[in-house]
Amino acid sequence: MKHYFSHFTCSLCGSEYGPEDVTYTCPKDGGNLNVILDYESLKKELSPDKFTELPEASLWRYINLLPVKAPGGFGTPLHRAGWTPVYKPTRLAQKLGIQDLWVKDESPNPTASFKDRASAIVVARALQIGAEVTVAASTGNAGAALAGMAAAVGAKAVIFAPKTAPPAKIAQLIVFGATVLLVDGNYDQAFDLSIEATHNFGWYNRNTGFNPFTAEGKKTAAFEIWEQVIRRMPEGNKPLTVFISVGDGNIISGVHKGFKDLAALGWLSKMPRIIGVQSEGSAAIANTFHQGGEEIKPVQATTLADSISVDLPRDGVRAVRAARETGGTYITVPDENILNAIAELGRVGIFAEPAAATAYAGLVKAVEEDIIKPDDPVLVLSTGSGLKDVKAAMQAVPQAPIIEPTLAAVKKVLK
Amino acid sequence: MKHYFSHFTCSLCGSEYGPEDVTYTCPKDGGNLNVILDYESLKKELSPDKFTELPEASLWRYINLLPVKAPGGFGTPLHRAGWTPVYKPTRLAQKLGIQDLWVKDESPNPTASFKDRASAIVVARALQIGAEVTVAASTGNAGAALAGMAAAVGAKAVIFAPKTAPPAKIAQLIVFGATVLLVDGNYDQAFDLSIEATHNFGWYNRNTGFNPFTAEGKKTAAFEIWEQVIRRMPEGNKPLTVFISVGDGNIISGVHKGFKDLAALGWLSKMPRIIGVQSEGSAAIANTFHQGGEEIKPVQATTLADSISVDLPRDGVRAVRAARETGGTYITVPDENILNAIAELGRVGIFAEPAAATAYAGLVKAVEEDIIKPDDPVLVLSTGSGLKDVKAAMQAVPQAPIIEPTLAAVKKVLK
Repeated sequence: MKHYFSHFTCSLCGSEYGPEDVTYTCPKDGGNLNVILDYESLKKELSPDKFTELPEASLWRYINLLPVKAPGGFGTPLHRAGWTPVYKPTRLAQKLGIQDLWVKDESPNPTASFKDRASAIVVARALQIGAEVTVAASTGNAGAALAGMAAAVGAKAVIFAPKTAPPAKIAQLIVFGATVLLVDGNYDQAFDLSIEATHNFGWYNRNTGFNPFTAEGKKTAAFEIWEQVIRRMPEGNKPLTVFISVGDGNIISGVHKGFKDLAALGWLSKMPRIIGVQSEGSAAIANTFHQGGEEIKPVQATTLADSISVDLPRDGVRAVRAARETGGTYITVPDENILNAIAELGRVGIFAEPAAATAYAGLVKAVEEDIIKPDDPVLVLSTGSGLKDVKAAMQAVPQAPIIEPTLAAVKKVLK
Repeated sequence: MKHYFSHFTCSLCGSEYGPEDVTYTCPKDGGNLNVILDYESLKKELSPDKFTELPEASLWRYINLLPVKAPGGFGTPLHRAGWTPVYKPTRLAQKLGIQDLWVKDESPNPTASFKDRASAIVVARALQIGAEVTVAASTGNAGAALAGMAAAVGAKAVIFAPKTAPPAKIAQLIVFGATVLLVDGNYDQAFDLSIEATHNFGWYNRNTGFNPFTAEGKKTAAFEIWEQVIRRMPEGNKPLTVFISVGDGNIISGVHKGFKDLAALGWLSKMPRIIGVQSEGSAAIANTFHQGGEEIKPVQATTLADSISVDLPRDGVRAVRAARETGGTYITVPDENILNAIAELGRVGIFAEPAAATAYAGLVKAVEEDIIKPDDPVLVLSTGSGLKDVKAAMQAVPQAPIIEPTLAAVKKVLK
């Protein structure tokens, strides 16, 4: 199969590198690298209709637009990452007073979060370059996704986590057969140690904002939004507005990249407007967006939405641009609104973890503030299952009443 | 659309009832009711190839073989129940020394368990008969599934649970907007109260082993196994052996019913052999299978696999028959083996809850005991996500080591 991966460019200085010349960030300034495809060849050899013909119900249906070779592991969970459902919860749309609302739910991914998209591509790349061990620093979804995708194809994964990580989250990593090292230090120390070990042992590192292929995995969500929603919208519609929860900035950057790929191919007539949503307690990127410029200043993150709780976002610059370049914006919401959003989504049958519900909380605020008009078509990305953080769910809803085992007691409480 | 639901028959006395004449169990002896389709008309009007043409990636692709009308709620999680992936974990097959092993993983269902299949059909039936409230007694997956499927279409759900139910499991029900009543009593009291309330308030009751439509939802897994595996097997192959974890017996009865439907249509040349697997600590149905007869005697269930921990199974007779009539058997496994099975499945990227891993534990024992030969094709049904019970997962694997944040410490621990 032909390979359309042309080169890397640095997101900061613009330097170009061949596909095999660099592995992680820009050697000059440490900037995140963008993957550039050979759009001219792709335009000639592919057409938008081609994807809908592909039988594979996973992100691998977009193999021609990915910078890796089709991996082995067919018939394993590696080939079930992506191609997640888009729901149309009309009751929520009515409540918000908007015409068209879609929610893309990432829970059915193999490890129940959006992060499987990135890990699937990173594991495919590791197989391709013959890396025997793939490594990440993570306490949560990214680590679980790497461990799960590596297990799917029998590859080794090593996960560094701060020793304060919740034992329940660690258990999932170990079940997937990953080697987990609990670092007697904070997340940044685990991150730095994972990179030191990577260089020393010749491992392949998945860290977000470091490995350029994570965004390439995440961009597949944009392709799906295009195939499942945008291509089916009537002519003359306003462009889609996409709400995305933002922590380190890699998901919003990846989705933006996907839309840019489609635009470069001429397959996207209107660039969607991308709105990033952060917790008020972890708003480093939103701060930069509203203050201007591209300098990301660290915060002391405090939010119950642990998957987007980040002091210094590692993909902040591209995340700011995702909103700026598409006419979008950044919205911040308090944790209370995130808990409300969990309950709102639950009432239409979507069980979201706090970080996933944050995007919906942002939509609620955007409607209140008239950023979203009734005729703006809106898609909310819900990035992970509520089963990932049941403790937060318990805070989102009232307790159930205890009753005597009698019909009279049932009648009394239901009044 | 034509409706092929012919009548009910009682699984104990064989009495027949029209589709609208009874609602739950047999009025004469309380036996579970079987749904009988109009197989002669179906044979004339349908063909096996028809299903693969249907675009809907859910159990609703089998609408013609279901006793309900196609429900509304398109674009909601109701239309994402079923059509779960079948994995082919070759490393596990090699380890077991068998040629063909498939694992059907029910985690991607909307509420992450097999129970969504039953709840989807029950909610469709509730919509069809105009029932405003659907009710169940459950502490776990069945309650979550009913709450989630009802929420998907804006229907009301009431869940009765013993007050000892884990708050984390209850939280999910409340997030889905269900009314949860914690009964100051045990599960049986919650069950009985739910039925009393059903009759009193005119609600529609989903209870397993009571409502005949739950098995009709569960049979769709058999249709999928047929479509995804059996139809693709080469001619002359030995029949498929299917391993199913068994608690109250409704899943194995439902899957058996699905295969019987296909056989009645003449679309299944070889009936699969069905092997039920129970925890040693909750083996009422296995006991009856091996002792002979159909009398189910209650046990004092004690197993960590809470989803199959049952004192008196409510669908035991049909569950015994599922194995007897297909040349299968019942296998019991200790909790230790269930924990091992969680770790084994995890290492190929499948994260199963204890009840789900029990089926795989049964396969391991069946291979050891020569019940399964190397050339027996085998499918293991994994009924729910490990995220449903992370506490059990923590027992299944060793703890991770804590290390100083230095490369020397990494080297030392990896030796």
